[in-house]
Amino acid sequence: MTLETLGIQAKQAERELLKLNSTKKNECLRAVADGLVAESEAILKANREDVRIAREKGMTESLVDRLALTEQRIHSMAEGLISLIALEDPIGEILEAKIRPNGLEIGKKRVPLGVIGIIYESRPNVTADAFGLCFKTSNAVILKGGSDAIHSNKAIVSVIRHMLDFCGVTPDAIQLVEDTNRETAKKLMQMNEYLDVLIPRGGAGLIRTVVENSTVPVIETGTGNCHIYVDDCADIEMAVNIIDNAKTQRTGVCNACESLLIHKDIVEQVLPAICERLFGKHVEIRGDENCCRLNGQIVPATEEDWGREYLDYILSAKVVENLDEAIAHINKYNTKHSEAIITKDYEHARRFLDEVDAAAVYVNASTRFTDGFEFGFGAEIGISTQKLHARGPMGLKELTTTKYIIYGNGQIRP
Amino acid sequence: MTLETLGIQAKQAERELLKLNSTKKNECLRAVADGLVAESEAILKANREDVRIAREKGMTESLVDRLALTEQRIHSMAEGLISLIALEDPIGEILEAKIRPNGLEIGKKRVPLGVIGIIYESRPNVTADAFGLCFKTSNAVILKGGSDAIHSNKAIVSVIRHMLDFCGVTPDAIQLVEDTNRETAKKLMQMNEYLDVLIPRGGAGLIRTVVENSTVPVIETGTGNCHIYVDDCADIEMAVNIIDNAKTQRTGVCNACESLLIHKDIVEQVLPAICERLFGKHVEIRGDENCCRLNGQIVPATEEDWGREYLDYILSAKVVENLDEAIAHINKYNTKHSEAIITKDYEHARRFLDEVDAAAVYVNASTRFTDGFEFGFGAEIGISTQKLHARGPMGLKELTTTKYIIYGNGQIRP
Repeated sequence: MTLETLGIQAKQAERELLKLNSTKKNECLRAVADGLVAESEAILKANREDVRIAREKGMTESLVDRLALTEQRIHSMAEGLISLIALEDPIGEILEAKIRPNGLEIGKKRVPLGVIGIIYESRPNVTADAFGLCFKTSNAVILKGGSDAIHSNKAIVSVIRHMLDFCGVTPDAIQLVEDTNRETAKKLMQMNEYLDVLIPRGGAGLIRTVVENSTVPVIETGTGNCHIYVDDCADIEMAVNIIDNAKTQRTGVCNACESLLIHKDIVEQVLPAICERLFGKHVEIRGDENCCRLNGQIVPATEEDWGREYLDYILSAKVVENLDEAIAHINKYNTKHSEAIITKDYEHARRFLDEVDAAAVYVNASTRFTDGFEFGFGAEIGISTQKLHARGPMGLKELTTTKYIIYGNGQIRP
Repeated sequence: MTLETLGIQAKQAERELLKLNSTKKNECLRAVADGLVAESEAILKANREDVRIAREKGMTESLVDRLALTEQRIHSMAEGLISLIALEDPIGEILEAKIRPNGLEIGKKRVPLGVIGIIYESRPNVTADAFGLCFKTSNAVILKGGSDAIHSNKAIVSVIRHMLDFCGVTPDAIQLVEDTNRETAKKLMQMNEYLDVLIPRGGAGLIRTVVENSTVPVIETGTGNCHIYVDDCADIEMAVNIIDNAKTQRTGVCNACESLLIHKDIVEQVLPAICERLFGKHVEIRGDENCCRLNGQIVPATEEDWGREYLDYILSAKVVENLDEAIAHINKYNTKHSEAIITKDYEHARRFLDEVDAAAVYVNASTRFTDGFEFGFGAEIGISTQKLHARGPMGLKELTTTKYIIYGNGQIRP
């Protein structure tokens, strides 16, 4: 099937999905969830094939773990779909409405984006997850997964399509690009006629490729070089607890802390406590000269370290003169994701919130909270680090757009 | 000055602009407006140079008219800036705020986009206009105008920068790319490090070039192949008045009507009245076979006509079987701008509003109302025909983004 055929079918599906009400959509989500569980043996069989090939190719076991499905993981996928049922359907909401002096009634109505393209890497659970979010918001989706997961993705998509068909809904609400080569991916990125938006989900390399090659509007997600700044008047115990949590509670995620800035007046008090806690958890600290001088176990950092997203038990650390230097450093090296200050000072907290450029800025809390579930959205398609359309965790509303609907009775423009 | 220098300076200006409150910004807008009027002689002199060169190059008089400034037009530019003073400053607005069960207070705050790039064509008034909208929303702007207007643009930007400096505000809030060649424009479109968004303002060719070449997020504006569909149960007099208005009140604009669809059951009654009115105003009608059969003065349309944005006294016309065909035709050929149905039928009105894919969909009113001022925004930077970030007329709010600000007291993620 050519990409163009997928595009044409997605556009047709878009029109059909517009006509589904929430009750019907929820019925489908439940049926798909049931179908995934009922067909778990077939999905696991396909997944075993992917895992076998991956191991043959020498994939590391930590990546194999991301690729591998289990009975339990399939149940989680199904539960993810079920959880969407309870969420309010954002489609059709009137955001603003007014009557103009000439009697025109102008309303701004929430509508689906249309056709969403999602390019992702090896985790096959994204397949069901992305479908659920797009379907709940009446969007058609074209998925392009990685070659590593192709058998799993085909099996999952096949079950979803079958269940949609069973419910009397067009299976083209979800389509998979089965050709996993890079040229096809690039062509997909330029299908402006058929795609309303493209969302890459994966590592920094994938996201950069999509941003650089796509003519379709992209929502950039993901990379997070997140900082915690310990101000001169921080609560030291709170600082250590938050730094520990943000660095070690889970390391491979975009909202983990990667870099520490410490005010010079508090560094001698706070750094020993931080080192004790983090070294105890086998975190490597790469510090500037000042940090290294205070603790011999700290490894010297290079300029490159300030921009790194380690996604590992590594943390960079630097001593700063004052709040201004901290803000300037963060705005220079961050990826506009999540940034935190630990302080007791009212004015410093205010300035940090105002002047640091990021999707989420925290006072006295862990950066690990930047997440659609933690923010109470009930779902998440990713975390936008760009400024257009959506910024921060994206839930259902971020998969919608608006249209102006205007009721007149013969108005013409004078 | 290299583009990179402009970028670095714009980023610095972005930080400074964040600190200006509304009172200060309004003071600057007034000073700039006064400055433009006071320096009108210098601006007019520069503009005469542009006009002289344009005429030498053989520019048509209608294009020269768009390029030429007058004392009156400079006053209009100044008034445009003054009118922004009265508008509410959207920056700092809290859109949502909530307390999570763990005590975290999460607010969603409206903030500037940062640095906005605007690429535009020959009208020099866009220079002051775009500055005003960006400045009111605390954004720095990098302008790239056309070569035709370079002397005028330099003169206008020079006055604005001088007045900002006079007010104690960084003149780098507005910068002009003085090199007008295409390679520079392409480089600007890939300055992701410095530009948060790029807005092209001009004809279809310019917009396509920007969409195809830009890696910076783009807000697509402008082209409008707008339709009016006359339903079988339309008020004929209303239909004729609206069609006349949408076609002839101003032809060179994106919200003018370019194509007419008429239900087969009403065409014999309504087409003669439409022809009488439009032919009386020297509009050429290009019709399908059915239209041509009913009036010998109608010129046969080609397939290409259905997709044309004439921006002229030309209208395409086609007879359709029913509402379904009208909706399908519009969704196939439109540019997602503005579409109208003339009907007395409740269900047809509803279906048209729901199923036509466009930024603005009208029942019984002229498409000419799709405009920031007509919608009551008090200002307009353009009309977005894409679905991400902004759709339809863009006012001040559309030049902003949001950031999550989170107040904690030591929360860590369990």
